Amino acid sequence: MPRGSTPLVLPMPGNGDLAGRLARRLSAEVGALSVRRFPDGESYVRLLSNVAGRSVALVCTLDRPDDKLVPLYFLAATARELGAARVGLVAPYLAYMRQDARFQPGEGVTSAQFARLLSSAVDWLVTVDPHLHRVATLAEIYQVPAVAVAAAPAIAAWVRAHVAEPLVVGPDSESEQWVRAVADAAGAPHVVLAKVRRGDRDVEVSVPDVARWRGRTAVLVDDIISTAGTMIEAVGHVRRAGLVDPVCVGVHAVFASDAYSELLAAGAARVVTCDTVLHASNAIALDEPVAAAVRPFLA
Amino acid sequence: MPRGSTPLVLPMPGNGDLAGRLARRLSAEVGALSVRRFPDGESYVRLLSNVAGRSVALVCTLDRPDDKLVPLYFLAATARELGAARVGLVAPYLAYMRQDARFQPGEGVTSAQFARLLSSAVDWLVTVDPHLHRVATLAEIYQVPAVAVAAAPAIAAWVRAHVAEPLVVGPDSESEQWVRAVADAAGAPHVVLAKVRRGDRDVEVSVPDVARWRGRTAVLVDDIISTAGTMIEAVGHVRRAGLVDPVCVGVHAVFASDAYSELLAAGAARVVTCDTVLHASNAIALDEPVAAAVRPFLA
Repeated sequence: MPRGSTPLVLPMPGNGDLAGRLARRLSAEVGALSVRRFPDGESYVRLLSNVAGRSVALVCTLDRPDDKLVPLYFLAATARELGAARVGLVAPYLAYMRQDARFQPGEGVTSAQFARLLSSAVDWLVTVDPHLHRVATLAEIYQVPAVAVAAAPAIAAWVRAHVAEPLVVGPDSESEQWVRAVADAAGAPHVVLAKVRRGDRDVEVSVPDVARWRGRTAVLVDDIISTAGTMIEAVGHVRRAGLVDPVCVGVHAVFASDAYSELLAAGAARVVTCDTVLHASNAIALDEPVAAAVRPFLA
Repeated sequence: MPRGSTPLVLPMPGNGDLAGRLARRLSAEVGALSVRRFPDGESYVRLLSNVAGRSVALVCTLDRPDDKLVPLYFLAATARELGAARVGLVAPYLAYMRQDARFQPGEGVTSAQFARLLSSAVDWLVTVDPHLHRVATLAEIYQVPAVAVAAAPAIAAWVRAHVAEPLVVGPDSESEQWVRAVADAAGAPHVVLAKVRRGDRDVEVSVPDVARWRGRTAVLVDDIISTAGTMIEAVGHVRRAGLVDPVCVGVHAVFASDAYSELLAAGAARVVTCDTVLHASNAIALDEPVAAAVRPFLA
């Protein structure tokens, strides 16, 4: 392939490690860009690689999204202005999937609004396990092709390799989709707890009988660990039921403020996450399935 | 006018004072909205006023813009979804006007990119003295009607009322446009200094002979005071030329980090700004000309 048409993987700050692994799998070049702040708080962006005529994949995971969105929008626009053949976004963690309905009059349905904004900026999107709940597929809210990579096979492989006699536990009903997929692929039984949410941080868990699985190691699986309130309640429950040393697995290590240390303090024997949000708990690499989803867009 | 069609002025957090004054001048209602952050860093927005069928003016000045843009975009989209007849933006300070060209290869021309983003969110824009330099008018980069209110008449009135024997001084060539307008309206002479910029904070001033105006009070006028580097150099120059106790007037009190106290420490006898960015130095109210510019959009 002539050099001019080699696809370009362009990491936003903090996304260089995953971008490098994706580029190797995709026979793409890792490009360079610069993002900084002027003293007045405005963002400055610059593409340092030639994008003309090339297929470009920006890599930017979208935890704490508001600060990242403006420079990301500018960089995508700049790549288009400078003649990129196509500009896509690899956002291993996709933000704004939780406010997917108007729960109170006047609320913004930000999942759809954010999707419209991103759809105006890029030609395609690849993400990992977006929090689909009332919205069934990304195509309902994204106006560009948007592919959701499943983390379950990689999580199941990790469970098989690291946990003897696992019981896969979903901390709430919304986690059913990930939990069943992981349990089935790991050949393990699973149970799903029920949750009542009273506010951002106030969560109570009511639960089925897990005591009959005593002797197994509980592997609690959820898509996003943010405040960890749900996980902490679930850890408490399985421990009280006699399943000691539970392992917590999250796809996305969002971890608001002290949530990680609070989860360990609550009795999680180990906390393991995928590499969608850079964090000390990352142990499950997803560059292979993400690269497979990106490949068709670079052709 | 039936209540349902009373125009609605909706202040984003921190913009309530100006919004209240605008609403009084426009016989509009001040509406309410809520903006907060979820623990994971995402923004939550809610309109607390009924917008259906009404003309809406969001008020959000855009210093430190990146954090404000996402909730602003969501609120404008929500107002449209909920049936607002028209949704405009009053941004007394308009961000991203300074990167108006590709100075280095690969740079984003963020003035035009930001304009496109705002133009996708609202139906009209009113601002005060945007930093027009290589771009001659807002219409070159905004796809919706965009009106620039001039602060010069109000600044000139302040100078006439507060400074005897003024010499209006422009700290650099880019300030020529504001300085001439203020001087002419104030019936005062003016001079413009020349500036060489070496970086965000490194500025040197080379100057015409201002010593012949000794005995007058120098009134340094610029559109944006951000790092205050330009103003501080200019204050030093006029003081060395024998014009003691200079007064600094800025349209937009952006003031990065300690710039305000540094400007006072450099020998500015007084620092005065318009009320486009809330700051202790605000002394010149612009709600009257801003309301006049907004009025046609609410009809």
